[in-house]
Amino acid sequence: MSFELTILGSSSALPTSKRFPTAHLLQVDERFFLIDCGEGTQIQLRKFGINPSRIHHIFISHLHGDHVFGLFGLLSTLGMLGRKVPLRLYGPEKLASLLNDHLKYFGPLPFDISTHFPSGPEEGIIHEDEKVTVTSVPLKHRTETFGYIFREKHRPLNLRKEAISQYGLGIADRVRIKEGADHTLPDGNTIPNRELTLPPYQPRSYAYISDTLYDPELIPLLQGIDLLYHEATFSGRDEKLASETFHSTAPQAARIASDAGVGKLLIGHFSSRYKDLSVLLEEAREIFKPTEAVNDGDIFSIPMTRSS
Amino acid sequence: MSFELTILGSSSALPTSKRFPTAHLLQVDERFFLIDCGEGTQIQLRKFGINPSRIHHIFISHLHGDHVFGLFGLLSTLGMLGRKVPLRLYGPEKLASLLNDHLKYFGPLPFDISTHFPSGPEEGIIHEDEKVTVTSVPLKHRTETFGYIFREKHRPLNLRKEAISQYGLGIADRVRIKEGADHTLPDGNTIPNRELTLPPYQPRSYAYISDTLYDPELIPLLQGIDLLYHEATFSGRDEKLASETFHSTAPQAARIASDAGVGKLLIGHFSSRYKDLSVLLEEAREIFKPTEAVNDGDIFSIPMTRSS
Repeated sequence: MSFELTILGSSSALPTSKRFPTAHLLQVDERFFLIDCGEGTQIQLRKFGINPSRIHHIFISHLHGDHVFGLFGLLSTLGMLGRKVPLRLYGPEKLASLLNDHLKYFGPLPFDISTHFPSGPEEGIIHEDEKVTVTSVPLKHRTETFGYIFREKHRPLNLRKEAISQYGLGIADRVRIKEGADHTLPDGNTIPNRELTLPPYQPRSYAYISDTLYDPELIPLLQGIDLLYHEATFSGRDEKLASETFHSTAPQAARIASDAGVGKLLIGHFSSRYKDLSVLLEEAREIFKPTEAVNDGDIFSIPMTRSS
Repeated sequence: MSFELTILGSSSALPTSKRFPTAHLLQVDERFFLIDCGEGTQIQLRKFGINPSRIHHIFISHLHGDHVFGLFGLLSTLGMLGRKVPLRLYGPEKLASLLNDHLKYFGPLPFDISTHFPSGPEEGIIHEDEKVTVTSVPLKHRTETFGYIFREKHRPLNLRKEAISQYGLGIADRVRIKEGADHTLPDGNTIPNRELTLPPYQPRSYAYISDTLYDPELIPLLQGIDLLYHEATFSGRDEKLASETFHSTAPQAARIASDAGVGKLLIGHFSSRYKDLSVLLEEAREIFKPTEAVNDGDIFSIPMTRSS
């Protein structure tokens, strides 16, 4: 069961010949979550062999062009590919009227789109299904902006196969044991749950922190995240420029990662002013070693591991 | 002095991993005319080393996404690059309100955009400067659609250098001779203009015929064009599909080119259903031999030649 992030675009506002504007694709089992949709996202999906029709949820961080200008083309393509199933769109409230205004010119789509907005200025669950919860997190940018945290739900305990035959466990027994119960034998002896089950797989998590001022208030919300993407538009040498434009530097992203104790940090959304990104990567690694600077097409997987 | 067409995108509605949606760039001397602006046009401009700030005129054929979804990103980028000089935008009338609706969400740009619409349902000059005229041509598609014909103006005659000293020609003489006058010598003898001048360079021309049903009414308008781009979305085997969707086939494009007696035909806007485009190219070449099937990045130059 996969938990895999594909970087579709890693540039900031000005795309380069090698970096498309921002878009990420998170695959959790059979679910494909598209996160931001900069211009050319549909072209990147094709390039990386991802069928866009598998996407049913699109999360938009904010209404700046480099995060949303690919949405119109993608929706149009989904329609032309014969999509009938509804699509769920998450983002700032203005996204709904933007979409309506757009469809006035480019016609209705052959599938429904439902729009979902964070309910208030605090973090909160914006999507939940039987396997995943997605929390929206307000960010500090020049327009209403949200980060998104994707968390697998806790999985049930797994029965040890040999226990089933050893103790003659019936269906009802198995359900109770998977929920954590001990098992009482006909002779009155009790087998503790830990002898009947394997430790469960640990829920995996990915946090997408798009355009934002350096904001230590994020730290408690990101505690223990496995994989954190945090924008790092600027080098630490340009910290003034970062704060003026409501962006972060590579060292600031690393400080957030370090203070939140995440597993790994990905930095991206690089300003096109930096020809050599190794400087930004080194700045971040000095503060938080497990950092990677992302490129379009990079894939980051989190393997399944059992709790110890 | 160049007259050079760069293909930025050659796909139809569904882009592929190798073909971006439609956009062409025509360079006439120092003028850069962008014709249609499908998603990713600004990325293609960068890839092919063209500075987008050099573009002052954008012609949009019609408001289908694959011809216009790159416009928003390009305008935004021009603003970020510090553009101050105005931009001229040509296309169907609805383009102005589309742009206004868009700017409600993505803010004002730091430069002015003037919008220009064909004045009526007939062909007519939509742009003119000292070197070029652009004629808009109504096409038959599912929405209001225009083709554009770019023609160099007639250049003045060039004086033969040796004539200046031989006959002691002053400034006023030279101006008159360049306009076609003969020259009368002090002794009353007359030197005919053709002995004083070189034949002028022939004005070059490019016609962009985007999405359209096969339309023989175009033939007189395209008479003698040097370089004709005519969409060829479908193979001749899919003629029914072409007419149902208001598109053309490769043989239909070639018939227009042949009947109009153009110099060269470019076909593009290929449906993504054709994995092997050589079939479409062969169909067209059977009718009109000087045909090319365009690829993103192709460049077609028309050299300067003197009238004989």
